[in-house]
Amino acid sequence: MHARFYAPGAERDGDVVDLPHEEAQHLVRVLRLTAGTAIRVFNGRGGEFDAVVDTATKAGVQVRVHGRRDSQAEVGVDVTLAQAVLKGDKMDEVVRDAVMMGVLAIRPIVTTRSEVTLASLRRGHRQERWQRISVSSAKQCGRAVVPVVHEPCTFEEALGPLGATGSPLCGLMLVEPSAAANVVSVGEVGEKPLGATILIGPEGGWTPDEITRGASVCRLVTLGSRTLRGDAMALVAVTALLTHWREL
Amino acid sequence: MHARFYAPGAERDGDVVDLPHEEAQHLVRVLRLTAGTAIRVFNGRGGEFDAVVDTATKAGVQVRVHGRRDSQAEVGVDVTLAQAVLKGDKMDEVVRDAVMMGVLAIRPIVTTRSEVTLASLRRGHRQERWQRISVSSAKQCGRAVVPVVHEPCTFEEALGPLGATGSPLCGLMLVEPSAAANVVSVGEVGEKPLGATILIGPEGGWTPDEITRGASVCRLVTLGSRTLRGDAMALVAVTALLTHWREL
Repeated sequence: MHARFYAPGAERDGDVVDLPHEEAQHLVRVLRLTAGTAIRVFNGRGGEFDAVVDTATKAGVQVRVHGRRDSQAEVGVDVTLAQAVLKGDKMDEVVRDAVMMGVLAIRPIVTTRSEVTLASLRRGHRQERWQRISVSSAKQCGRAVVPVVHEPCTFEEALGPLGATGSPLCGLMLVEPSAAANVVSVGEVGEKPLGATILIGPEGGWTPDEITRGASVCRLVTLGSRTLRGDAMALVAVTALLTHWREL
Repeated sequence: MHARFYAPGAERDGDVVDLPHEEAQHLVRVLRLTAGTAIRVFNGRGGEFDAVVDTATKAGVQVRVHGRRDSQAEVGVDVTLAQAVLKGDKMDEVVRDAVMMGVLAIRPIVTTRSEVTLASLRRGHRQERWQRISVSSAKQCGRAVVPVVHEPCTFEEALGPLGATGSPLCGLMLVEPSAAANVVSVGEVGEKPLGATILIGPEGGWTPDEITRGASVCRLVTLGSRTLRGDAMALVAVTALLTHWREL
């Protein structure tokens, strides 16, 4: 199996494209590949290609794109994970795992009980970091799609698209079984939608107000009475829902 | 919520029992609790109790057991995870996650492509370490049951109980979709059994011989064509099967 790189410019046979800086560094400094080496590239939008290293120096790498290859099948539901930013570096693992399981987008959110602010996330360039993790997880998992990691936003902003009239998006808000009267289990979520947004709260959970507000545009879903670690919730929720929809 | 400790000797109201060394250290040195403090204890076999610290010194802790409390409901399938030991410390996370999801036992196995030997695992006292992780994960997740971590054994030994005539145990061996002709998806696994053993291979996968041998006493099950990290396989597999059996 040839080494595999992210080349967002690759579109068709004959293209000669630059690799992004991190990918070029990986090719030259870590794998020490040289001009003429056969590789694989994926463009992050579902395209997977044979390619050959054209030039490889410490200043940059160009690759020549050849034939298109079959890419790994994507999940049949467009899943967006709207995850409250967790403490420390735990969000890194959440992004890595969600990409591995096939989500199409990740929307980091800040809620009432979040211990971080939008301003501090921006100052820390966290979105860029998570987007790089999305690339490396797609690379490791053989996906030809690189899920987008959106700029962090508020809980209210994340609900916006779900409330639109006639939206084909299904909002699923994860809550404790006792959070409200109308909480359903994963098995009761219903048929596979075209797209779904899964909302997961921070370590301290949602506020009652957030649950009321969320319930107006989402189903309230529970993973049962077990206590899950905050950084494992997303992997468990995505796995359970994909299993329910027969996408696993 | 009172602090919660593992007290394997707790059986009934009135018992005065020693806490195990690690639990006593946690109570005295980390939480700095003293005699008279109300706590919760669980005995690892499903019993959960109110209790009070009776004596607490650096030499040891005794607690007085009071009334029995409702304990967290256990999963309705007795799941054993037979996991090939992974490289480095990755098995630690597998044990932690499997206990969180509700498995009843973990059987570390060594397979043809494992990069560790039974002798080195024994020398490293790994089983004792994993058993401690099982305690701390049960503690963190609110389970009153501490899953047993068996001594590591060979793949062949792990298959033993599955081949017995009339065994109510269902063996489920995780494989790539292309591993054999009769591989089923999680949705095709069938009704909830009384007990199930889930077999998961090492980073390098099973050998063809192991798959043939396993198929004689197990269903071959696939999680699809996605590439999962070795240390995430158990969490994904257990979650998917519990979802299928309506236990999530």
